Amino acid sequence: MDFLTNEKLTIVGAAGMIGSNMAQTALMMKLTPNICLYDPFGPALEGVAEEMFHCAFEGVNITYTTDIQEAFEGTSYLVSSGGAARKAGMTREDLLKGNAEIAAQLGKDIRQYCPDVKHVVIVFNPADITGLVTMLYAGIEPSKLSTLAALDSTRLRSELAKYFGISPDKVKNCRTYGGHGEQMAVYASTASVNGEALDKMIESGKIPSQDWVDLKLRVVQGGKNIIDLRGRSSFQSPSYISISMIAAAMGGTPFTWPSGTYVNNDKFQHIMMAMETVIDKNGVHYKMPKGSAAEDAELATSYGHLCKLRDEVIEMGIIPAIAKWDTLNPHM
Amino acid sequence: MDFLTNEKLTIVGAAGMIGSNMAQTALMMKLTPNICLYDPFGPALEGVAEEMFHCAFEGVNITYTTDIQEAFEGTSYLVSSGGAARKAGMTREDLLKGNAEIAAQLGKDIRQYCPDVKHVVIVFNPADITGLVTMLYAGIEPSKLSTLAALDSTRLRSELAKYFGISPDKVKNCRTYGGHGEQMAVYASTASVNGEALDKMIESGKIPSQDWVDLKLRVVQGGKNIIDLRGRSSFQSPSYISISMIAAAMGGTPFTWPSGTYVNNDKFQHIMMAMETVIDKNGVHYKMPKGSAAEDAELATSYGHLCKLRDEVIEMGIIPAIAKWDTLNPHM
Repeated sequence: MDFLTNEKLTIVGAAGMIGSNMAQTALMMKLTPNICLYDPFGPALEGVAEEMFHCAFEGVNITYTTDIQEAFEGTSYLVSSGGAARKAGMTREDLLKGNAEIAAQLGKDIRQYCPDVKHVVIVFNPADITGLVTMLYAGIEPSKLSTLAALDSTRLRSELAKYFGISPDKVKNCRTYGGHGEQMAVYASTASVNGEALDKMIESGKIPSQDWVDLKLRVVQGGKNIIDLRGRSSFQSPSYISISMIAAAMGGTPFTWPSGTYVNNDKFQHIMMAMETVIDKNGVHYKMPKGSAAEDAELATSYGHLCKLRDEVIEMGIIPAIAKWDTLNPHM
Repeated sequence: MDFLTNEKLTIVGAAGMIGSNMAQTALMMKLTPNICLYDPFGPALEGVAEEMFHCAFEGVNITYTTDIQEAFEGTSYLVSSGGAARKAGMTREDLLKGNAEIAAQLGKDIRQYCPDVKHVVIVFNPADITGLVTMLYAGIEPSKLSTLAALDSTRLRSELAKYFGISPDKVKNCRTYGGHGEQMAVYASTASVNGEALDKMIESGKIPSQDWVDLKLRVVQGGKNIIDLRGRSSFQSPSYISISMIAAAMGGTPFTWPSGTYVNNDKFQHIMMAMETVIDKNGVHYKMPKGSAAEDAELATSYGHLCKLRDEVIEMGIIPAIAKWDTLNPHM
């Protein structure tokens, strides 16, 4: 069999809709023959494992457990969708406290049971915050943890394709940066449509400015739209994209959509957010986005919003003040 | 891109849990760049399409429609999970009437809009009956339609692996034939466990006979067990397996688990049921199972049960008496 690696992959939250799809996606992508499904909800977890057994994949060792130690020990790759789900009407930020606490425990468990993990992908929202909290408590290097942010960029691609009635393949290099939330920064200057620069199309009125404003709103509310249409949170695209991120970290096709990554430079400090990233076998690494003055200002606003969320989590006592972070994680 | 074919695949029931997983599975397996999602429930269908767009698959043309003509015209491959779902406590047979009527309409739509379809896979239960009804009204040759039955065999593999605490890969050639329902015939004589013939293990008491009876019951109730554990019908394994069947018909890896197929020979007449089948680019073809006298008797019982269901559907007026079938489908 042609797996990307033989190392253990653990899927946290495997009983849920995203987690169970991740399991199937990872098996279909032939990431590794060693897949462990973890969830505290035993019966539903067993149901998911049964579904995978009934697919009759060959050459794989699928295990499942509600025991965190058993799940995490020996794990090289870990992906977690194990937070509370966003319900209709909630913003991602409403989930802040509960999921930040879950992230803190996840980080502690990683530190205790699999400190040598090679890459962690965090999916549960607000992922910029849960990823940051996880990394802090796990004590791992910034290159070893990324968060799901790409859906905003893929939604921009999809919305532009629909707007112009063309194949999404004709829409290139769509990018949103900053928070994976309602205050993301949608960049026009990176993208092209049918070979034409998107920002020029907006300037020239090929996309009337109100249409562009409306389109950006549809991008920002892409997740809410799925809930409205399907009556449930998006789960297929988050699963597929996050497993593609893990595949890249295992040495598969590099993942080049923006991912959330830890940033601490002269412009943005002590934050996790979507940058111009690549995930490959060396983990996640980033370049600073470069856009128009207005776009960069929007990114700064998004950063400010994330800082506020981070500071709320500090005030809640879930993570210590920034000055004390290095006692938990010397890499931050 | 390396697709199996460029021909159009239509997924019927794409807004549902099985159908939406089929869409993702077909895209991940690179079956064809031309995938059409059909469902009468527009908003949920759009939600599924959006999920697929947000995955950002490349080189594919994903369309979706609530218009049956648009969905079916030009379709070479069709897979349908578009029936009513089985609810907790229902047997597959409880669904008989409603889904037989849906199948009759599906067959008529195939005849009207895509009579040259190359292969159809029917997933909605009771699939032996819905497949038969669809084939009758579609007017297509028996090699061109198969029904999902393999899950019973893969469940036997899984249950044996769990019983002996070994990898499912050590359990070979598990087979259940006849109905994909609670009266399936579970064969022991085809299978081996760790290289040892299963029927011999039962005879010698390596599996105590009560354990074998219990194990067979778990196989038969495998679908019910998923509902009990997960609180929802199985959807991942039916999707994965049925898309594997379509992939085989497109010329991919031949599908060698038992599938439901039309049978009309000296032993079994005018029925659709799981046989020893292969699906390949020539469609589905079968050999008669050969088991012990007791197993073959069990298969005859399963056949009898299916005949009864078929005759009920005739009595309901959904399909004509067998003597008149050739006016609808000369191949039957």
